[in-house]
Amino acid sequence: MLVVMENTATPEQIDRVVKVIEEMGYQARPMPGETRTTVGLVGNDGRVDGSRIEALAGVAEVIHVTKPYKQVSREWKQENTIVTIAPGVSFGGSEIVIIAGPCSVESEEQIVEAARAVRDAGATALRGGAFKPRSSPYSFQGLGKRGLELLAVARQETGLPIVTEALDDEGAHLVAEYADCIQIGARNMQNYSLLRTVGKMDKPVLLKRGMAATITDLLMSAEYILAEGNTQVILCERGIRSFDTMTRNLFDLTAIPLVQRLSHLPMIADPSHGTGLRDKVIPMARAAVAAGADGVLVEVHPNPERALSDGGQSLYPDQFARLVTELRAITAAIGRSVAPTPGTAAPARG
Amino acid sequence: MLVVMENTATPEQIDRVVKVIEEMGYQARPMPGETRTTVGLVGNDGRVDGSRIEALAGVAEVIHVTKPYKQVSREWKQENTIVTIAPGVSFGGSEIVIIAGPCSVESEEQIVEAARAVRDAGATALRGGAFKPRSSPYSFQGLGKRGLELLAVARQETGLPIVTEALDDEGAHLVAEYADCIQIGARNMQNYSLLRTVGKMDKPVLLKRGMAATITDLLMSAEYILAEGNTQVILCERGIRSFDTMTRNLFDLTAIPLVQRLSHLPMIADPSHGTGLRDKVIPMARAAVAAGADGVLVEVHPNPERALSDGGQSLYPDQFARLVTELRAITAAIGRSVAPTPGTAAPARG
Amino acid sequence: MLVVMENTATPEQIDRVVKVIEEMGYQARPMPGETRTTVGLVGNDGRVDGSRIEALAGVAEVIHVTKPYKQVSREWKQENTIVTIAPGVSFGGSEIVIIAGPCSVESEEQIVEAARAVRDAGATALRGGAFKPRSSPYSFQGLGKRGLELLAVARQETGLPIVTEALDDEGAHLVAEYADCIQIGARNMQNYSLLRTVGKMDKPVLLKRGMAATITDLLMSAEYILAEGNTQVILCERGIRSFDTMTRNLFDLTAIPLVQRLSHLPMIADPSHGTGLRDKVIPMARAAVAAGADGVLVEVHPNPERALSDGGQSLYPDQFARLVTELRAITAAIGRSVAPTPGTAAPARG
Amino acid sequence: MLVVMENTATPEQIDRVVKVIEEMGYQARPMPGETRTTVGLVGNDGRVDGSRIEALAGVAEVIHVTKPYKQVSREWKQENTIVTIAPGVSFGGSEIVIIAGPCSVESEEQIVEAARAVRDAGATALRGGAFKPRSSPYSFQGLGKRGLELLAVARQETGLPIVTEALDDEGAHLVAEYADCIQIGARNMQNYSLLRTVGKMDKPVLLKRGMAATITDLLMSAEYILAEGNTQVILCERGIRSFDTMTRNLFDLTAIPLVQRLSHLPMIADPSHGTGLRDKVIPMARAAVAAGADGVLVEVHPNPERALSDGGQSLYPDQFARLVTELRAITAAIGRSVAPTPGTAAPARG
Repeated sequence: MLVVMENTATPEQIDRVVKVIEEMGYQARPMPGETRTTVGLVGNDGRVDGSRIEALAGVAEVIHVTKPYKQVSREWKQENTIVTIAPGVSFGGSEIVIIAGPCSVESEEQIVEAARAVRDAGATALRGGAFKPRSSPYSFQGLGKRGLELLAVARQETGLPIVTEALDDEGAHLVAEYADCIQIGARNMQNYSLLRTVGKMDKPVLLKRGMAATITDLLMSAEYILAEGNTQVILCERGIRSFDTMTRNLFDLTAIPLVQRLSHLPMIADPSHGTGLRDKVIPMARAAVAAGADGVLVEVHPNPERALSDGGQSLYPDQFARLVTELRAITAAIGRSVAPTPGTAAPARG
Repeated sequence: MLVVMENTATPEQIDRVVKVIEEMGYQARPMPGETRTTVGLVGNDGRVDGSRIEALAGVAEVIHVTKPYKQVSREWKQENTIVTIAPGVSFGGSEIVIIAGPCSVESEEQIVEAARAVRDAGATALRGGAFKPRSSPYSFQGLGKRGLELLAVARQETGLPIVTEALDDEGAHLVAEYADCIQIGARNMQNYSLLRTVGKMDKPVLLKRGMAATITDLLMSAEYILAEGNTQVILCERGIRSFDTMTRNLFDLTAIPLVQRLSHLPMIADPSHGTGLRDKVIPMARAAVAAGADGVLVEVHPNPERALSDGGQSLYPDQFARLVTELRAITAAIGRSVAPTPGTAAPARG
Repeated sequence: MLVVMENTATPEQIDRVVKVIEEMGYQARPMPGETRTTVGLVGNDGRVDGSRIEALAGVAEVIHVTKPYKQVSREWKQENTIVTIAPGVSFGGSEIVIIAGPCSVESEEQIVEAARAVRDAGATALRGGAFKPRSSPYSFQGLGKRGLELLAVARQETGLPIVTEALDDEGAHLVAEYADCIQIGARNMQNYSLLRTVGKMDKPVLLKRGMAATITDLLMSAEYILAEGNTQVILCERGIRSFDTMTRNLFDLTAIPLVQRLSHLPMIADPSHGTGLRDKVIPMARAAVAAGADGVLVEVHPNPERALSDGGQSLYPDQFARLVTELRAITAAIGRSVAPTPGTAAPARG
Repeated sequence: MLVVMENTATPEQIDRVVKVIEEMGYQARPMPGETRTTVGLVGNDGRVDGSRIEALAGVAEVIHVTKPYKQVSREWKQENTIVTIAPGVSFGGSEIVIIAGPCSVESEEQIVEAARAVRDAGATALRGGAFKPRSSPYSFQGLGKRGLELLAVARQETGLPIVTEALDDEGAHLVAEYADCIQIGARNMQNYSLLRTVGKMDKPVLLKRGMAATITDLLMSAEYILAEGNTQVILCERGIRSFDTMTRNLFDLTAIPLVQRLSHLPMIADPSHGTGLRDKVIPMARAAVAAGADGVLVEVHPNPERALSDGGQSLYPDQFARLVTELRAITAAIGRSVAPTPGTAAPARG
């Protein structure tokens, strides 16, 4: 940490900063400059609360040099973490994982049909919401526990492992019982209570970036999960808030190489929520993979015109099949490959 | 709702839109224009899910004309809702309420000293966190239930009603037991499960705007609480994310007159989190009141240099006393007044 | 400047950074920390280009401690700069200046009627566009030189000094000939060629903040003007881009105390463009003055329904008159006053 | 255009809106709904100024359905515009164009060395700044006309056509004389005077998106150029302002398919400014091409450690060579190809 003094700071004010740093148990190194003095804090273990020092007279600014996260950092663990949600379905290695399926589970027929369609097209895992975070209390909120049961039926029918969202503690325990990976959505990225709950579980977690979250915020939220002992965390870019309302969100693909350099955790991308527009999903899924994503999360519905939610951003099954073919070509171009559909000996060739 | 067709849309595609609208139980009115047709949906009760129509061929855009919220709207209820958190402490009338106190409850001595200081300076209510949402799992997380007990002691000593934050269901029940108003923080503004929980309680709720929340998002989150039956909701602007990191957040004061026109609920502002800088809190608290806020939420610490959190944005008690004097002059200038400190016959004069 | 090395940086990489800093003519002070070394650059005169050092191997980050602006800084000049645009009309002292008038000059009748209306209501100066920066090439672009002549007529009739915008070099020379203050609009805030042109003139400049400009960006643009010799610069907040489209812009009033602490230049605010909504202009003008603005810029039209541009955000003359009365009360509450209308012995009382 | 009335609007207020629309020369179609009336304006030719109607009593909102741009629209011209800057170097067809070179022209030796390096690696055109828009007036501002002469020397030596920026009218005429394509930078995207100047020229223009520009804003600025008669316009995404300062800008790749659907003009991307970080340039250049960009603009410097500007985001020549190889593989995966280096019979194979 570096404390920048005002150019009018008195020697007494500088001494006071030095003393407070020492009281906190660290070393202080004043560094007089041309126009102002800066005081370095040496020995920061990531627990220093800068606001105490910001409050001192004569302090212009406190600059954090040490990153606030620890266990998620690549400085803590050099090699990639591989997160395996089912036999043969792993994130963080050379294979990229394609998770596909409808926004919501609507009925047994719908989810089984969707699961078969995405499996036949080359998906590696199945998505589908049983608990839906809707901005209106009057919108369809998902089938709840019944939705989880139907997802289990779809897994039984297709062999695809299941990724689905939990909204609260009770839901998290239910999801853990039925699914292969618990999704924490963007709106709950800083629901620290829920993060602690899934941090205590022995189940992979897919953590989506919040709409106003910086990369550091995202990593700090993952840190909550790791701090409780669960290291099986997959991160996901899904678009952030920006000023142009032409798309639902601004899909920030640079987040992928940024996170991959700072952290050992796998990072995937969700072009369906990232753009909110069906005809943008395909080019942006390609772009995500070209940028180095360890997987993509894509909404596909057997009949988007009849979807109870997000119909406008869901792909038709045949569009999805073409996308998988393109993703195979792009992964090959950068020395990677698409993970095979579970139960198949090798990836089907498009 | 208005469905804008592409300029190349065929008559069949327009017919299909009309039919889907009718299937959904509404009337459709096609309106051919110079370059394109638009189709109006008549009879929208706020439950129409536009994504189903967005998914149809030939549709360029779906424009929502009806606001998605209902019970929070001024069209639903014309006159201001008055929220009373303790005898004589009401939000939404001509008096503005000053809620002040430290970021966190740290000890009995600290919170009682703070409560006395803010009461003597003219505060109307006491704030102080027992459950703290911290971005790092390694930072001070608040005293929990013990913090609530200490807040009750401070209320006993000073007569000030208490506003404090809950982070989850269990905490919400505890806060409801001890405090006069439950705060839902910015990070949980879209934690719908928690909103439903406090919506079922008979206790006023202070709902803070999330960092990426539009005004519509804020009102929709309040709608979750009202939809469960609790109409005692106070809204709060506390700064949103923007591109200039010189302040912690961007304090959006225009939100105050915007919300007051769209909704009957009271709207206050938090200049401490809104700016994150002690010397900006005073001018921005004045500005909030001049913009029409129904109250302000201000961090004051008896000894900011020793605060366990947010020291850099906490006022010294004497700064706060000067602020209250200025706020009295500004409220007078716009025909309002500062609510008196509970237990005093009339407001002390600065 | 502070160079943060990666935690894996080798001694050779640190030496290389030291050497490059010394080659650039500064002193280097390596400061080994717990997990990484940082190297301080001492003697920074504001001309150091960090990108050369960012390019070196082993460098994680370059942190700028010295502010990049000089002459606009309060460290360069401690006392407020007073900018006088006409006898008795000064920005930066205890009086606040009210500049009012229509978006565009449309005709002699319109501008003279508007000028009389705003003068009678208590305005101190007249605004009105002759050169209009319109987002569409097909929209009304202003009357050009003829507009300037009509503004001069209005000044003749009312005694109000004139503030009007220039869009390019040629226009700047024309505006300088006719008006009392040259406005540089938000879209041209980083048109450095135009900034240099007005920097060479002996005429006050009103520089508006760009829609994506940080406070530092705004001050750097002002620095361009001062660097050419013109120190008569007034800064203006007029709203920035944000994610909520409910208002045209996000009016960032915290910019006022921020700029006033960092710079000696006066800072005003434009609530008309800052909000884009007529009924929000009045509360936000009050808020701007309460936040400490040295003036406000308000659009007033004798007949907003017939305005050729910005009708929806223009005040009616009687609304403006009420606003001036409120601003007088608020300035009194904070120990300031509204500057009197030129030619009147003392401010007219509302 | 659609005028949404307040739910309390009177029949007289609705009549007034109808009358004003008719006075403006359009047809009005009132459409009574469940809770409010909306009035459609039929016959909008893109010149309707909504602000006049926003100003009327009882109007809640004015919604623009017709896009404000015309000649840039794909509705105006269905097929792609192909912009050719030199024989064999065309944007908008199936080939993607790689423009590479240093941020600034620094010396004859530097620019010729850079030009040879990027040509040998497979670039199709040369970039290099002679006029530099720097945020500080004290930074290196480019070599000006001498820089243009050196670019011409580099073209002579390598056969690569030249793209370089103009900052003002005078500079635009000079650039047009020496270069093959005039770049208008992000800061000048809404410098309408400069847009008109280049709109009158017979020279291709590369228009970069401004930091706060929506897609509509970008297209409107292009419309200024086309409205003057110059249809040879290439658009460029180069990152916008957002809240995370970890990267210099937020690189918005979804802009590419968005623009390509709305407009017939070619759209390229600049990952160097889009990210500002050397090790992010390569994955994001790949992502841009996978998203469908018609070209990329990449900063390459023979010796980034010695660059006078932007050293930290410039690629080393060998990194650039590897990037070109990867881009060839990705274009092949999506049925496109990298445009060959001028003067070579066929693209060199990596």
